[in-house]
Amino acid sequence: MRGRITGIKTYADPVLVGDLMQGGTVGEVVESNHPKFFVGDFVVGMWGWQEYTVSDGKGVQKLNPHLAPVSTALGVLGMPGMTAFFGFLEICHPKSGETVVVSGAAGAVGSLVGQIAKIKGCRVVGIAGGDDKVDFIVNELGFDGGFNYKTTDNYIAKLKELCPNGIDCYFDNVGGAITDAVFPLLNLYARVSVCGQISQYNLAKPEPGPRLLTYILVKQARVEGFIVIRWMDRWSEGIVQMAQWLREGHIKYREDIVHGFENIPAAFIAMLNGKNTGKMLIQA
Amino acid sequence: MRGRITGIKTYADPVLVGDLMQGGTVGEVVESNHPKFFVGDFVVGMWGWQEYTVSDGKGVQKLNPHLAPVSTALGVLGMPGMTAFFGFLEICHPKSGETVVVSGAAGAVGSLVGQIAKIKGCRVVGIAGGDDKVDFIVNELGFDGGFNYKTTDNYIAKLKELCPNGIDCYFDNVGGAITDAVFPLLNLYARVSVCGQISQYNLAKPEPGPRLLTYILVKQARVEGFIVIRWMDRWSEGIVQMAQWLREGHIKYREDIVHGFENIPAAFIAMLNGKNTGKMLIQA
Repeated sequence: MRGRITGIKTYADPVLVGDLMQGGTVGEVVESNHPKFFVGDFVVGMWGWQEYTVSDGKGVQKLNPHLAPVSTALGVLGMPGMTAFFGFLEICHPKSGETVVVSGAAGAVGSLVGQIAKIKGCRVVGIAGGDDKVDFIVNELGFDGGFNYKTTDNYIAKLKELCPNGIDCYFDNVGGAITDAVFPLLNLYARVSVCGQISQYNLAKPEPGPRLLTYILVKQARVEGFIVIRWMDRWSEGIVQMAQWLREGHIKYREDIVHGFENIPAAFIAMLNGKNTGKMLIQA
Repeated sequence: MRGRITGIKTYADPVLVGDLMQGGTVGEVVESNHPKFFVGDFVVGMWGWQEYTVSDGKGVQKLNPHLAPVSTALGVLGMPGMTAFFGFLEICHPKSGETVVVSGAAGAVGSLVGQIAKIKGCRVVGIAGGDDKVDFIVNELGFDGGFNYKTTDNYIAKLKELCPNGIDCYFDNVGGAITDAVFPLLNLYARVSVCGQISQYNLAKPEPGPRLLTYILVKQARVEGFIVIRWMDRWSEGIVQMAQWLREGHIKYREDIVHGFENIPAAFIAMLNGKNTGKMLIQA
């Protein structure tokens, strides 16, 4: 979303002033001439920032509100869940006993990545922007450690303390100074999954930072960026697995719900500033 | 070698003042009590910067001077050759029609990477530090284009001109400003093989440069560092293939031979400063 409104084609088409802002939506059918959808059905689709829409049924998925709250179709059982599932497992290939670091650890994706890493038997350390967020990931989600980057002076020293065996996997939502501190601690054959670079999105051009390729070379590390739609053909596989972990209690999730359609822009900006814990949702 | 004399453990053990400097050597057996090696045999091994050594035969490979000049065991049919072969093919997975950029393109490794890329049907652009080097890679080795980074002002504009379809594979020997210019031009699912960062080796700590992870994210690129000994168990496979390409005339190589044992340090420094074209060798 942030990329779209720069007006530049990134991996998503730009949204220009006056265009409809894109985004995933859960909705309720209020009128229907479609043979498969009935009034009262809950559905998920890409309808953007609007209160009502007309659809021919293409790209619309019906939800079963008895299986899971319908809002999960935008979180743990939707794009953020699949981003965590495929983006972590397919790029980091975590092995039991390895150390995994996650930035943006209390967010919709990061909080799931850490829990998946725990399921895989890893030591998990999260980096987040608030003491309440660190408390959430460690005491509620079961991360092995974490720290608040806003109140920590020396990220490298803190990471060394929390990752005594170095870092095997890094799932990066944030970039910038946090990522700069992770790279010197990567172990041999480390894997880095680049999911987001939220610290960089408001910059007109890349800000300078220490060059990281020497660490990639010396540690023979692999760094890969991804957009989750790459795994669209395996979506149901991911949903089935996440739903099972959810039922078994291995995965917890939190939603940060803001009420009122008119509050979308403020909530969007708050999310980019790290004010949310868990998936940021608007209930219109 | 450059990493060792920092005194810091990188992927290789440090060499301290007074220690024997490490390095690959081709030698002639001048005395032998070993049942497999005879006076006059040519051999290759890791004996470092010394004129004579005593060996029990372990890690010693006998060379057939009738198959190829024995010096090739230190170049095209040795570690540089295998670095190009495995480091390019196993990390970049080049496909016919793709565009490949190589930095350090006239060096022992880069010159081979470009020729392997041509064998694979790619468009190949080399970056080197001299007009003579660019002439060598384009007119002698068959690269599709190249430029002298020492006399080019705008690397990005030059790369855009030489790579009209963007960059699918980048084989990096150099790092720094050259690499900074390549990343913005990477195509979707680009692969970057980090073989060396010669521009950075003399720096006490990483110099600042534009942060590159956003490019990796947006283009879903994969960046991987390697040390060639990773493929030690497949060495003979690489040697056989390179020797075949050499015989068939698909691969040419150049050696930069300095005479005199006492000239090793000066030749080493000259190599780090980019004075050589092709594999830098000392004939003691």
